Amino acid sequence: MKIICAKNELLGALRFVSKAVAVKPQTPLLSAIYLKAEGDTVELQGNNNEIGFTYSIKADIETPGHIALTGRYFQEIVTKLPGEEVTLAYDRENKLVRITSGSADFHLLSMDANAYPTVQQFEGNLQFTIKDNVLRDLIRKTTFACSTDQSRPLFTGCSVQVDHSHLLFAATNTHRLAVNTYVLPEEAAGSILMIVPARILLELKQALSSEIPIDVQVTCSYNSISFRFENVFMTSRLLEGMFPDFKRVIPPDFITKVHLNTELFRAAVERVSLIARSSEYNIIKLAFDAEAGSVLISSTNQEVGGAEEKVPCRMEGPSITIAFNALYIGDALKNFDSEDMTFCLNQPLTAARLIEDGRDEFTYVVTPVRTAH
Amino acid sequence: MKIICAKNELLGALRFVSKAVAVKPQTPLLSAIYLKAEGDTVELQGNNNEIGFTYSIKADIETPGHIALTGRYFQEIVTKLPGEEVTLAYDRENKLVRITSGSADFHLLSMDANAYPTVQQFEGNLQFTIKDNVLRDLIRKTTFACSTDQSRPLFTGCSVQVDHSHLLFAATNTHRLAVNTYVLPEEAAGSILMIVPARILLELKQALSSEIPIDVQVTCSYNSISFRFENVFMTSRLLEGMFPDFKRVIPPDFITKVHLNTELFRAAVERVSLIARSSEYNIIKLAFDAEAGSVLISSTNQEVGGAEEKVPCRMEGPSITIAFNALYIGDALKNFDSEDMTFCLNQPLTAARLIEDGRDEFTYVVTPVRTAH
Repeated sequence: MKIICAKNELLGALRFVSKAVAVKPQTPLLSAIYLKAEGDTVELQGNNNEIGFTYSIKADIETPGHIALTGRYFQEIVTKLPGEEVTLAYDRENKLVRITSGSADFHLLSMDANAYPTVQQFEGNLQFTIKDNVLRDLIRKTTFACSTDQSRPLFTGCSVQVDHSHLLFAATNTHRLAVNTYVLPEEAAGSILMIVPARILLELKQALSSEIPIDVQVTCSYNSISFRFENVFMTSRLLEGMFPDFKRVIPPDFITKVHLNTELFRAAVERVSLIARSSEYNIIKLAFDAEAGSVLISSTNQEVGGAEEKVPCRMEGPSITIAFNALYIGDALKNFDSEDMTFCLNQPLTAARLIEDGRDEFTYVVTPVRTAH
Repeated sequence: MKIICAKNELLGALRFVSKAVAVKPQTPLLSAIYLKAEGDTVELQGNNNEIGFTYSIKADIETPGHIALTGRYFQEIVTKLPGEEVTLAYDRENKLVRITSGSADFHLLSMDANAYPTVQQFEGNLQFTIKDNVLRDLIRKTTFACSTDQSRPLFTGCSVQVDHSHLLFAATNTHRLAVNTYVLPEEAAGSILMIVPARILLELKQALSSEIPIDVQVTCSYNSISFRFENVFMTSRLLEGMFPDFKRVIPPDFITKVHLNTELFRAAVERVSLIARSSEYNIIKLAFDAEAGSVLISSTNQEVGGAEEKVPCRMEGPSITIAFNALYIGDALKNFDSEDMTFCLNQPLTAARLIEDGRDEFTYVVTPVRTAH
């Protein structure tokens, strides 16, 4: 293999695929970056057997072929190369890859490219196309609610349900639940229910940063999901297991509805949370006062001090005082986009719901905590 | 104590003095930030018994007095306050400090301000005044050469020598030596030899960031040094011990002198160092070729690969091939400001000197390493 390509394009590709390279590889090859040169394109790959990424760039290909290189040094070297162009040439005899640019001349030991577990671009049982900005929003408004506890892997993923034109993302750590739905303009030919690891969704969200909306092709099978857009292909294994019937935990109606300015409420919760998170249970108390038309947000820690802040609100229904894990309120508010919001409550020990006004497709339900105070 | 001050000024002061607050305090009070309100000024202090910082801001002082607060929460809270102004009020009965700003109302448990080890502003044996940009340069061009090995504390400091109008900074880790001198416009009344911890010098360098040169008053005693400028006072204990006679290790003359473009040489060394630092000894080889008028910088690692790069140079004296710890060359070049430089050499196993052309006040000497190749 011998190719000449633009340094910045190579670097962009390296940065992207290296996210799928194993940090603690089961086999040395899983720490490699794989390059395949064919026609006028070089495809770079990273693959750790859980997720696999590919990224294609244009290049002058003098000799087609493929190579596998240790990812770590390769990326560092390309970052510092002096020229605008980079030449990569495989020296079969010495099993070296020569990287030259301007006055710089590097060679890196190569690995066995023939043995590299290349990323498989499978057919899948179901496919659909979605705009990247829509997909980004579906991910952003749900994935934050996933668990990070690896001992219950099921909850480290998002339940993704496709039912013809209906798309539903749901995430829960069993204490809070985020659900976001979307109606596809072109319906998918069938139905599927998957649990997609939060990790691939977060990487995908980061990768989908175009200013102009683009199409993302999603391919689903019984054990994997893949995303294709522009010069990128991302694939991931699915999580195994049965996601709980989350619809059961969404209360059908509420006694008290509190209308708030999202930003005022968010900023006050964030401040009071500074004290909450100094204690083990990270608790904030919300005293919704129907008569005063305000909510008093407070938190106390015997060893540090306390905080309280009052935010105006408009209430329907009786006053109520309720306590939550501050994180579960703060996380949701960070992902709210509407100017106004509604906090829906029943009893101090039953689940509450936070609504972005005017966005019925998004549901957030959170369980309160019992406090001694 | 009760004061009203600008949030941003308070935050600036907190960020500064918190650098002197102990992370693992010997006594709880050393994790505190101390505030003293008097006249129209609030002085904030951080002190960990090794270094002590004070920073004064203007404030409306309703009730003078002093308080001590846990640094960590105090700074986080002020960062997030909603208003432009902050009110700090001491509640003696409950031993609380109330922090209010806009709708936010915090209270933090206070510590015993009377027991706080306030920063001492001692008289000292010797004083001098120096411009901040000059001091910054003296620090920058020497401190990087200090050791970070705490088992030999002497070398974690800079030798600072004041001899009437002559000021000399020297730092070494025994493998490399950086010396920088300056002639004071107004001479100090006497002489002193101190070993100043690199830590205080680096904090000082960072603090001295004014665009317009300002005066820094330096006060030296047998066991401490302090710096005063604008609204800031910084003090530090000195290191104990006898600094080696470093002048001995500076070779008086050289057989080979190599003239190089600083930036070309620096960039090439940095690139080749990528391979060098993948191995235990971090070695780069420099082959200065008098006939070709170039230096070949190279490094090899059996497990990774290799790098080489040629940089043009103009040589006086014979060719020489010599090897160094890549870090000791790179660190110096990063702090060179001149366009051109001279690499002065004798034998492959004797100390070399790097000179910034036209800057005789700065000396950098480095010991080569023996290689098998």
